Amino acid sequence: MSFPDNLKPKEPSGASLLARERQQSPIAVDALGAHIFAGTGFLARQARVLSVMAAEPLLDKSRQQQLSRVDRVRLGLARGKLLRRLQARHGWDMDDYHMAAYLLGEQSPYRLHVGMFRTTIQEQASDAQRAYWMPRVDAWEVTGTYSQTELGHGSNVRGVELEARWDPAAKEFVVHSPTLTAAKWWNGSLGRTANHAVLMAQLMVPDPKRKGEYVSHGPQAFIAQIRDAKTHLPLEGIVIGDIGVKIGFASMDNGYMLFDQLRIPHSALLSRYVQLDPETSVFSKSPNAALSYGTMTSIRTVLVEEAGTHLARAVTIAIRYTAIRQQFKDKDSQDPGRDELQVLDYPTVQYRLFPLLAAAFALQYTGKVMRQDYAKTRGEVEQGNLDGLAVMHSHSSGLKSLSTEITNAGIETCRRAMGGHGYGSGSGLVEMQKDYQAKPILEGDNWMITQQTSSFLIKRMAAAVETRGEPAKDQTDAQLKTFLDQKDQGRAFDILNNDSDIQESFRWRAASMTYDAYKARVVDKKKHNDLLIQFHKLSHAHSSSIMVASFFTTLTSSHDLPPETKEVVLDLYRLFAYTAIQAESYECKDLDALPDRIQALLARIRPHAVKLVDAWQIPDYLLDSALGRYDGNVYDDLFNRAHRLNPLNDVVFNPDYKDDEIIKGSGERKPLSSKL
Amino acid sequence: MSFPDNLKPKEPSGASLLARERQQSPIAVDALGAHIFAGTGFLARQARVLSVMAAEPLLDKSRQQQLSRVDRVRLGLARGKLLRRLQARHGWDMDDYHMAAYLLGEQSPYRLHVGMFRTTIQEQASDAQRAYWMPRVDAWEVTGTYSQTELGHGSNVRGVELEARWDPAAKEFVVHSPTLTAAKWWNGSLGRTANHAVLMAQLMVPDPKRKGEYVSHGPQAFIAQIRDAKTHLPLEGIVIGDIGVKIGFASMDNGYMLFDQLRIPHSALLSRYVQLDPETSVFSKSPNAALSYGTMTSIRTVLVEEAGTHLARAVTIAIRYTAIRQQFKDKDSQDPGRDELQVLDYPTVQYRLFPLLAAAFALQYTGKVMRQDYAKTRGEVEQGNLDGLAVMHSHSSGLKSLSTEITNAGIETCRRAMGGHGYGSGSGLVEMQKDYQAKPILEGDNWMITQQTSSFLIKRMAAAVETRGEPAKDQTDAQLKTFLDQKDQGRAFDILNNDSDIQESFRWRAASMTYDAYKARVVDKKKHNDLLIQFHKLSHAHSSSIMVASFFTTLTSSHDLPPETKEVVLDLYRLFAYTAIQAESYECKDLDALPDRIQALLARIRPHAVKLVDAWQIPDYLLDSALGRYDGNVYDDLFNRAHRLNPLNDVVFNPDYKDDEIIKGSGERKPLSSKL
Repeated sequence: MSFPDNLKPKEPSGASLLARERQQSPIAVDALGAHIFAGTGFLARQARVLSVMAAEPLLDKSRQQQLSRVDRVRLGLARGKLLRRLQARHGWDMDDYHMAAYLLGEQSPYRLHVGMFRTTIQEQASDAQRAYWMPRVDAWEVTGTYSQTELGHGSNVRGVELEARWDPAAKEFVVHSPTLTAAKWWNGSLGRTANHAVLMAQLMVPDPKRKGEYVSHGPQAFIAQIRDAKTHLPLEGIVIGDIGVKIGFASMDNGYMLFDQLRIPHSALLSRYVQLDPETSVFSKSPNAALSYGTMTSIRTVLVEEAGTHLARAVTIAIRYTAIRQQFKDKDSQDPGRDELQVLDYPTVQYRLFPLLAAAFALQYTGKVMRQDYAKTRGEVEQGNLDGLAVMHSHSSGLKSLSTEITNAGIETCRRAMGGHGYGSGSGLVEMQKDYQAKPILEGDNWMITQQTSSFLIKRMAAAVETRGEPAKDQTDAQLKTFLDQKDQGRAFDILNNDSDIQESFRWRAASMTYDAYKARVVDKKKHNDLLIQFHKLSHAHSSSIMVASFFTTLTSSHDLPPETKEVVLDLYRLFAYTAIQAESYECKDLDALPDRIQALLARIRPHAVKLVDAWQIPDYLLDSALGRYDGNVYDDLFNRAHRLNPLNDVVFNPDYKDDEIIKGSGERKPLSSKL
Repeated sequence: MSFPDNLKPKEPSGASLLARERQQSPIAVDALGAHIFAGTGFLARQARVLSVMAAEPLLDKSRQQQLSRVDRVRLGLARGKLLRRLQARHGWDMDDYHMAAYLLGEQSPYRLHVGMFRTTIQEQASDAQRAYWMPRVDAWEVTGTYSQTELGHGSNVRGVELEARWDPAAKEFVVHSPTLTAAKWWNGSLGRTANHAVLMAQLMVPDPKRKGEYVSHGPQAFIAQIRDAKTHLPLEGIVIGDIGVKIGFASMDNGYMLFDQLRIPHSALLSRYVQLDPETSVFSKSPNAALSYGTMTSIRTVLVEEAGTHLARAVTIAIRYTAIRQQFKDKDSQDPGRDELQVLDYPTVQYRLFPLLAAAFALQYTGKVMRQDYAKTRGEVEQGNLDGLAVMHSHSSGLKSLSTEITNAGIETCRRAMGGHGYGSGSGLVEMQKDYQAKPILEGDNWMITQQTSSFLIKRMAAAVETRGEPAKDQTDAQLKTFLDQKDQGRAFDILNNDSDIQESFRWRAASMTYDAYKARVVDKKKHNDLLIQFHKLSHAHSSSIMVASFFTTLTSSHDLPPETKEVVLDLYRLFAYTAIQAESYECKDLDALPDRIQALLARIRPHAVKLVDAWQIPDYLLDSALGRYDGNVYDDLFNRAHRLNPLNDVVFNPDYKDDEIIKGSGERKPLSSKL
């Protein structure tokens, strides 16, 4: 017992300030939570899985940021094993398992095994291959990675250099890296964990007409063993390793891999959509090969939902902390005895945080709509109707880009709004932000993939122009044709007084920008590359319109919210739309009225801010944040983390520069973790 | 020797691509470098200090990011000792020493000792105190920290809770932390290193009229020993520790400290500007007390220059890498045999990088002007003229805010423009970005301190209005009066065709926003807090106008550049200004013309990009970047870092989830570093 143990933070306490916040707002927290997660079973699953995890010392997060990279990977692997055992012990289904990974909040070295490795086999293996591999994958008898990007090629998949040459005599593929840049690179779970890989390699088949020459059939997926089952060392002819430290993803072994004439059997080629006849060496492709894009679409859809949950975490922390943090007295107040202001009372703080609060709601509504659309499209595909796939692919690309932009920038804004303490690990944002910084470049770089959205829109506009006068064939067509019919007289929107007009104005703007892009590329035949900036803006405008419409439609068509709660969420809708209009300087007659409107909305939302974030019900365990604690005991927690949990404080240093000694004899350090 | 040792990257190599870039541009690299660093001796000093550092194995950076926090601090301390010894051995002056710290690029645990601790004593100690302390400080017989911010108070210095009560009988101060939130917090070099501290504490003196009561004289600076010279343990009555992991600053021991009735002598109060008579207990303040703000102004000035050098580092790396990175063929090209495009050829990449290239030049010019102004002001102060101090303080606050915003966001933009490899430590941006993320909140939060700029401007506008018709008393007054005289008829600027009009338009806009803010606050008496967003925008507009003017004036008045080089730098000036106008949607008749103008400037700058960054002459040692290497051998370096230098690859793991073993017996790991 030393004197700090008797000290309390100054009054009023964080707990009392949060209690006051919760008292002053009529928001129906539980109803709003149920509304947000309606139909997903999310909250019940979260509670059930969390109760199991809470009992496991290995899943305690308090010292993990102190570890060396090697120890961090060890810890990640140990936890990965534990989660799999918990799955077996408690009979968790895959949704339970993913919930546990979500709550742990780190990149598991098994992530690719349960993710892209499994998904790719499931979707691209023939029935026979599925029957062979899936039981082994699900029992974790093999552990896998998905190996596509290379040292020299990321976005341009068609440019991968790894070769798989068909040897008709031996009926084997010879996998070979012709250059250093052909090294597989960045592949998660590869560096130290996986013993199998799905490999993307250029399929090369001997040219029947020119002896010694090969015909390329582009990058195809193969499955291969890469490490020895017993020694776990790379097989002869393969070199594998971890690529090193990254911004985040510390627990993940992103790897590299090179091949020297490795031979794999004919059965390695994943053959649901492509086949190579082992007898004739004839290559064939199924007409449904485009279905393999489904994986990418599904992952991008998940990234949109994830953008919502991650932004919600950052916003929860920032709003709770700025509600208990007090700094400076009101300059216009006459009362010298008054407390310092809560930081959340400053319009400069509301101006940064509340649009993000609104954006998190927008992302959650959008994720929900995307999930429903994706399920519908998948259903249609199974009925043989592939039309919806291209729409889904276009929407998911643009939304992945916009949503991860919003969240990546939003986390930094939340961090910054918390001042000094936002920079420390007690914020709970340090690891989360570092990990999240991968998302804008992952699964398609955010600038690159907006071309997919704009190309789709331009194609659809060209079709609408050509078939003008004919009935619309789907929703996109209808919107574009409406625009074509009305564009000459123009349309006026009353965004200040009509909530539906707000979303209509976004739609109109997206259609108008689609028309401009169509004109530039198709009519005026401008160079593709010279239009890339315009395409990017078009994609973001289109994605914004989807977000605004998803927000409006889902909210206004729901009947599960008390009216005063619904009205506050409607204010968030308005704020989200107005700040987007202002940031992009949309051409809009009401632009000059927006700053005052926005400041009025900030003031209206202010009393409800804490209860709005409470509604997400993000557990303290996931937040791992002294600043964002539900109970508001911020300062005690920060002090506890520093004073009692920081291993650096077990070491006494010698600061005398003339002395070689670094650590003074009396202060020998204890091991960093006794858990491993 | 294994097969990867024989592999080469695909052609064309990075080296040949950079050679081509350097051949195609007539930029005079050496002349431009000399122009940028004119009169500072920077480049010669850099070369001299670097040659000493290169011979020291302890200063090798290749494995530092792998370390645990404890080991990272150990390494930081060992290096800190070494730099001090090198200083002694090679007779380095303080500029040489700071150059070494800059090239090492990490936060030394001695940073506060050579920084704020030393500066504060130098500036706020009486002559007698200086004579006692400075020799001890400079010989590092004592090592110190500057201890101001607390767990509960950062920006609001007047709110610090630590108390220093004067005991007239003992003639001592009693230093005491009344609450947990009074804990000193964040103080650099405190956690494990310093044995002395400059302490900011509320000076409390017994009230002669009311027995037992105290009169507060606000926060004052004291110097005190805090750790035992021999054991390096905290003195009795003090608790000290390191606050834990942060986003960056891994090698720095930011600390906390609590006091339990610690007694320190009368001589502890730093007494250049304030005095407490030990006999009468009468407190007095010198009329020049405001001079103590000089330290803050000087630090903010340094932060502006630092923003320039840090952004230059990020831009150098991003431009070199995107010049050697090739991805996707030109969609409009008819030649199937053509190489993939250099990423730097995409307008979407130029659009992100070149405005930052221009901003780095703008920051360097601004830093230079600030440095000159600061020296001039200091000179005037020594002559007894304090007028310039308020201007410097206002300028440095606004510019600190804007410049660290630009660089903090710019580093992320550069990182992102490099796609996947930008996320890895081979980028050289990982540690740099994490450390830099502290700057926007450090030495005055970027949102908070813009109030200082706007308050100053409003005051000056009020004075200009009052003295309208009288001759201008300085440059600011002249600008504001010119605005007042011309505002009713307005002014037209031809920003598209007249370079000087560009800067004039920025100045006009800042004056106009100053007038609006003056009107809102002084005339219409709106609430201070309701105007904070407007104040922030005003400060940024004012700071932008200083940057644009510094760029224009310094460049156009120089005679040391060949005309074609100067013309390219003028293009950077235009690009910097146009993108700022576009981003802020300045009211400006030429707004619609800007996108095409900007795209044309991007194309004009493109051929010179690599040589423009070469001109900064940032050594590979500082960049520590595979992607930003001067020689362009990016892929070999990335592979070398992963394959040969990554300690994780010395460990063989056991991924079988049923098996408790994590590390396979055969793969026991070697120690992470043999250096310590």
